[in-house]
Amino acid sequence: MNWFVVARMLGMLGLLVGASMVFSLPWAFPAVGKVETFEHDGFWGLIGAIACSLGLGGGLYLWGRFDKHASILRKEAFATVGLGWILAGVLGALPFLLSGSESAPGVKLTPIDAFFESVSGFTTTGASLLTELEDPDLVPRCVMFWRSFTHWLGGMGIIVLFVAILGQLGAGGKAMLKREVPGPITESVRPRVQESALLMWSIYVALSALETVLLMLAHVPLYDALCHSFGTMATGGFSTHNASAGHYNGGPVEAIILVFMILAGVNFSLYYLVFRHRKAELTWKQRIKFLTRDPEFRAYLALIGVTSLVLTISLMANEIYPDTLTALRHSLFTSVSIMTTTGFGSEDFSNWTEFSKGLIFLLMFVGGCAGSTAGGIKVIRWVLLGKIFFLEIEKAFRPNVVRPVRLGKSVIDDRVRNDVVVYFCMIMVIFLSSWLLLITIEPDDLWAKHDEHTAAEKLIDCATAVASTLNNIGPGLGVIGPADNYSGFSQQGKALLTLLMLLGRLELFAILVLFSPQFWRKQ
Amino acid sequence: MNWFVVARMLGMLGLLVGASMVFSLPWAFPAVGKVETFEHDGFWGLIGAIACSLGLGGGLYLWGRFDKHASILRKEAFATVGLGWILAGVLGALPFLLSGSESAPGVKLTPIDAFFESVSGFTTTGASLLTELEDPDLVPRCVMFWRSFTHWLGGMGIIVLFVAILGQLGAGGKAMLKREVPGPITESVRPRVQESALLMWSIYVALSALETVLLMLAHVPLYDALCHSFGTMATGGFSTHNASAGHYNGGPVEAIILVFMILAGVNFSLYYLVFRHRKAELTWKQRIKFLTRDPEFRAYLALIGVTSLVLTISLMANEIYPDTLTALRHSLFTSVSIMTTTGFGSEDFSNWTEFSKGLIFLLMFVGGCAGSTAGGIKVIRWVLLGKIFFLEIEKAFRPNVVRPVRLGKSVIDDRVRNDVVVYFCMIMVIFLSSWLLLITIEPDDLWAKHDEHTAAEKLIDCATAVASTLNNIGPGLGVIGPADNYSGFSQQGKALLTLLMLLGRLELFAILVLFSPQFWRKQ
Ligand SMILES: [K+]
Ligand SMILES: [K+]
Repeated sequence: MNWFVVARMLGMLGLLVGASMVFSLPWAFPAVGKVETFEHDGFWGLIGAIACSLGLGGGLYLWGRFDKHASILRKEAFATVGLGWILAGVLGALPFLLSGSESAPGVKLTPIDAFFESVSGFTTTGASLLTELEDPDLVPRCVMFWRSFTHWLGGMGIIVLFVAILGQLGAGGKAMLKREVPGPITESVRPRVQESALLMWSIYVALSALETVLLMLAHVPLYDALCHSFGTMATGGFSTHNASAGHYNGGPVEAIILVFMILAGVNFSLYYLVFRHRKAELTWKQRIKFLTRDPEFRAYLALIGVTSLVLTISLMANEIYPDTLTALRHSLFTSVSIMTTTGFGSEDFSNWTEFSKGLIFLLMFVGGCAGSTAGGIKVIRWVLLGKIFFLEIEKAFRPNVVRPVRLGKSVIDDRVRNDVVVYFCMIMVIFLSSWLLLITIEPDDLWAKHDEHTAAEKLIDCATAVASTLNNIGPGLGVIGPADNYSGFSQQGKALLTLLMLLGRLELFAILVLFSPQFWRKQ
Repeated sequence: MNWFVVARMLGMLGLLVGASMVFSLPWAFPAVGKVETFEHDGFWGLIGAIACSLGLGGGLYLWGRFDKHASILRKEAFATVGLGWILAGVLGALPFLLSGSESAPGVKLTPIDAFFESVSGFTTTGASLLTELEDPDLVPRCVMFWRSFTHWLGGMGIIVLFVAILGQLGAGGKAMLKREVPGPITESVRPRVQESALLMWSIYVALSALETVLLMLAHVPLYDALCHSFGTMATGGFSTHNASAGHYNGGPVEAIILVFMILAGVNFSLYYLVFRHRKAELTWKQRIKFLTRDPEFRAYLALIGVTSLVLTISLMANEIYPDTLTALRHSLFTSVSIMTTTGFGSEDFSNWTEFSKGLIFLLMFVGGCAGSTAGGIKVIRWVLLGKIFFLEIEKAFRPNVVRPVRLGKSVIDDRVRNDVVVYFCMIMVIFLSSWLLLITIEPDDLWAKHDEHTAAEKLIDCATAVASTLNNIGPGLGVIGPADNYSGFSQQGKALLTLLMLLGRLELFAILVLFSPQFWRKQ
């Protein structure tokens, strides 16, 4: 491990995070139109956070320059991504801490709370400890903007942004990118790393801008339009309203958010394929074929369709809603919100049937498409897993027939096949063991205190808390339902859940290697 | 598929099952000492079941003899094992049906109920629908004996018994055996199939006989001693008492059952290794080394030790029991009972802490050793999975270092490695999807009717029902706790759980292939 290189990279990351906090400053001023009086605490809190980030980042960078010529190899790439995301979480927590933000009236965020909220932002989980989002006395509006902005920075990946801005970073650049862009197959669309990083970010910026404009056309003020665009396109789910997307009570705003959630869950390279030959003689029919021929995209849409329909039937059969249209609307929004791992709520599903809760829980593990901003296991891994299962069953009674796993027209090589099954096993083992750990370290009080929750529900609620953070979704069931939040968990519980968010966002390995003694050993 | 061969095999199986019912007949007579008056319904029910089994078995056998010379290939082996276990379940249900057995006063067992109870017996699951085990008016004693006897037949495997009695069955004999003896690595201890089948059964018979004698020395009557030996050695868990092993209130009987549960969960080939060189100059120290050097055996004992200890701490910290010894006793018995997938209860763990319930739930997926009579995923698969995880994490940052998976001194080949991860993925996917399906088809009534159970507990209870049947354990949490039973489930729910028992007992593939259209297609 060349520590100078890692320090130089982490230093640049610190500078980048510090610089990006500047965009939150204007909202502290009444002139911009969000607040009525100057937000003193928020402004100076942000200034302090910027100063710390730039100071720390600059220091690390300068120290790292002692060895100018070393290049990033695989280990350095891993350390940069793993430690970089932790550093971003720490720096991102400073605005909450320094502004003295409160999770409830009179309850200041602890350092662990602020780290939880910041990591939840960067990893686009959207799990929150704030009980009151609309009161500037608890959290200044400029800090709330930073909270949503962390989503946007983390959505497409801070390292990807990094590579897009700074260009080729040696052999490790590709390795770093691979750790951050989710999915089992990460062939670049374009041969050069910087080019594809830039491309991903341009599509991301364009879609976010489009959503902001559309939301403003639907009479959402600029501040809220930006925050909700960040939350949607990053599949993050932080809202500025206590009722989340339900604040807009259906109508065009909900429809816009719905459509952009679906768009955010699609592999961004598909957009490139559709729009790339700007001048070539491709008809729209041919362009659309890039989408319709993609096995993952088809499975993604099919899953959204089927689950919405099944949910609607369950809700109607149990007379949860008076008319089918309302049931369909909430079913569709909830399915999309959970499957894309956004976590916006149009409705509190705590009152839905037990079946819907079970379905929502399983949907948490599906996730969006690879190469999107969504979390979860990813649709493509499920598609491959299904194909592998069928081949294994056939292999049992026809051991001599060797068939490769096929996806569309391409053959999946054994390395990818192995990675998919191992990834699934690891997610399940981490899920199960974290669940047991959370039950162990979390006192039963939280459930005993609630009149409407029994002790047995602790098992379910903790399972959804682990699934929700590991898959970067946000809400769960019971005490962490869409209408509730994570503020009831203990400090140790929050620390565990924060670790799970990082594990999920970076698809395990960039964090897991940090726990491996061999990783730190010289060789 | 050569149907004649399959019919011949299934016919022999029918004859075998019919013949084995004869051992239950004596218990209908007062002279044997269990009942006071002749059990008319039970006796004639068994006679009818024997007649049906022999008739059907004989018919199939005679029809199958039209093609005498065909031998069993892989497909025929699969069909024989998969269909054979279903046939055994159907025939084993007849004594319950024909004797008019009742699950509760006035409630006769339906055909699905009887099939559930019979499959639960053969697969050594031990999940029961009977609410009152001690009343001969509901279920005759001779039929209760049959119920426990199905455990014993299924424990070491009816096909293994088959091979032991009938000898080498061609190329398919080994394939059949492989499907029934659990575990990822099934090298025979002895080169010839019949020899190792005979050996397994001899050890099994010897241990069962030893337990029966010991139980009788502890003043348990012959009938109950036999039934509990069947339940223990097969890791089945059917008892003849409503309070299960708790009936004996600690003391020597509980201790004997505890020790034999541990013995039943050990790979039977290890016993062979320890005792084989009867005349060779091996000291006991050398013999014991076969045990202590075995990685699976060590992990098995370590897991039992650690979980008992952790459970004891949790129970003492929450003051569930007045003294440490009682807590330790119940913790040890419960850990062993769940891990060996026996399912005997010394105590109702419904009142334990939420942590203990979570731990018990996870323990359900561990299981005993490969080559034992226990169900579950098996300790060796977990050991290998752990090793694979560590190697994968290392591979992430050292992609060029290729290390094989090692177990003790031997290297695990890629085929076994693949089988282990795929098996784990399949179990998890089947568990999750069956859970959702059970929630769907099971009305919420069962939980709404109970005062002490809330609707949310349906999610937990169904999860444990699925885990418990898929891993062949028996009891679960909530409405199917150790003090309760499966009688509350709907007919469709019971059918699903029955399928899961078969899937778990045969380690998935022998049942899964039956659903594959390619399996039935001519080629
Ligand atoms: K989210
Ligand atoms: K059992």
